[in-house]
Amino acid sequence: MAYDGLGYHGWQKQPDLMTIQGSLEGGLQRITGRLTPVYGAGRTDAGVHAYAQVAHFESSVPEDTTDWVRALNALLPKDIVIHSAEEVPDSFHARFSAKGKTYTYYIHNGLRRSPHQRRTSWFVPTRLNLNQMRAASRVLVGEHDFTSFAAKNGEVKDCRLVLEEIRIEKQGDQITTTLKARRFLKYMVRNIVGFLVGVGRGRFGVDEVPMVLDSKDRSMAGLTAPPQGLFLVNVEY
Amino acid sequence: MAYDGLGYHGWQKQPDLMTIQGSLEGGLQRITGRLTPVYGAGRTDAGVHAYAQVAHFESSVPEDTTDWVRALNALLPKDIVIHSAEEVPDSFHARFSAKGKTYTYYIHNGLRRSPHQRRTSWFVPTRLNLNQMRAASRVLVGEHDFTSFAAKNGEVKDCRLVLEEIRIEKQGDQITTTLKARRFLKYMVRNIVGFLVGVGRGRFGVDEVPMVLDSKDRSMAGLTAPPQGLFLVNVEY
Repeated sequence: MAYDGLGYHGWQKQPDLMTIQGSLEGGLQRITGRLTPVYGAGRTDAGVHAYAQVAHFESSVPEDTTDWVRALNALLPKDIVIHSAEEVPDSFHARFSAKGKTYTYYIHNGLRRSPHQRRTSWFVPTRLNLNQMRAASRVLVGEHDFTSFAAKNGEVKDCRLVLEEIRIEKQGDQITTTLKARRFLKYMVRNIVGFLVGVGRGRFGVDEVPMVLDSKDRSMAGLTAPPQGLFLVNVEY
Repeated sequence: MAYDGLGYHGWQKQPDLMTIQGSLEGGLQRITGRLTPVYGAGRTDAGVHAYAQVAHFESSVPEDTTDWVRALNALLPKDIVIHSAEEVPDSFHARFSAKGKTYTYYIHNGLRRSPHQRRTSWFVPTRLNLNQMRAASRVLVGEHDFTSFAAKNGEVKDCRLVLEEIRIEKQGDQITTTLKARRFLKYMVRNIVGFLVGVGRGRFGVDEVPMVLDSKDRSMAGLTAPPQGLFLVNVEY
């Protein structure tokens, strides 16, 4: 499914707040007549978007999978669009079966704010040194303890993981940063992008990256990039 | 200035409705303390966007033009952004001094609706024949009576004008149609795009274009494309 996350308090269901998971479960309840929990591959934060989120649910109703797509799209708000549905074995779990996730972060690196890009990118009017950003990203790729790039209040204990790829591209005034890993920590992509923008601005040197990683201190890695530039673009199984 | 027209009932001021002109005049009134009429180059319809609208107003306060930009951007909602301001001679009129206007219309010609493109394009899932659309556009370019492509209730009497250019490009699943003329009739761009999509779908043949023009009958030219795909992209002086 794809969604525009701007009007939502993130993926995860919360009482009295609009969430993606809550909207999906509401739609399924109207179709099936019963409470149907939905499990997502990535628990995107408030305001974060998706081109290709994946979720699973259990249903005893054997139905044509295209009927689920049609019925959900008819019931859901227009900023959530179901692309396809398929039957999976009982062992499948949208999150735990995932072999990799890809996120893309858009920076609008222009001179003037754009009313059209503001919903889907971070406006950074400062000139950014892309070569430095790329050099810093090469240090971050690989297996590290990413505590310095995780939410301070993150519930996850083990912050050691393999960041498989960071790709930074520029087209016109848009900088696209794509990150790939089997799992990500809470706020990790936005914290890495915020840090890389700090590098691009000259606030951090490439030689400081190992020190920032080693510090295991969130306050050493600069800003958290705002949510509206972030898209979950792929989940691999 | 640029604006996201989705939340506005078009350029032109209307009592009790949010409009671009009304918002600008409201901002200027707060700055100058007096009623300051604003004249725009293009009176964009409800829901239509602008990358580069131009407007003029009179003020007796001799001020640094960058102060106007800063003050207006501070007062205006975020979906209107003033890019620059400059002093002009008394003879200048944003609309009547314009030598040409360029509009771009975006069609999302994909298989599945996108929650991200829905605010800025027309979703057309049918396969479109671009060669036919381009051939039809070549017949429309030039001097014609465009009554068949004007709003039925348009106030303008003289519908004869020179359409200087139509350029149709495709990148991925986005079709971009750019039109240039000294002046346009009400709904003209949207009516032409709606007609060209009709051609692309095979509903009209290229050989029927002269007949549609000659009929001077709006009902002969098919659909009006929806407003959210349309952008005023340039005004030439």
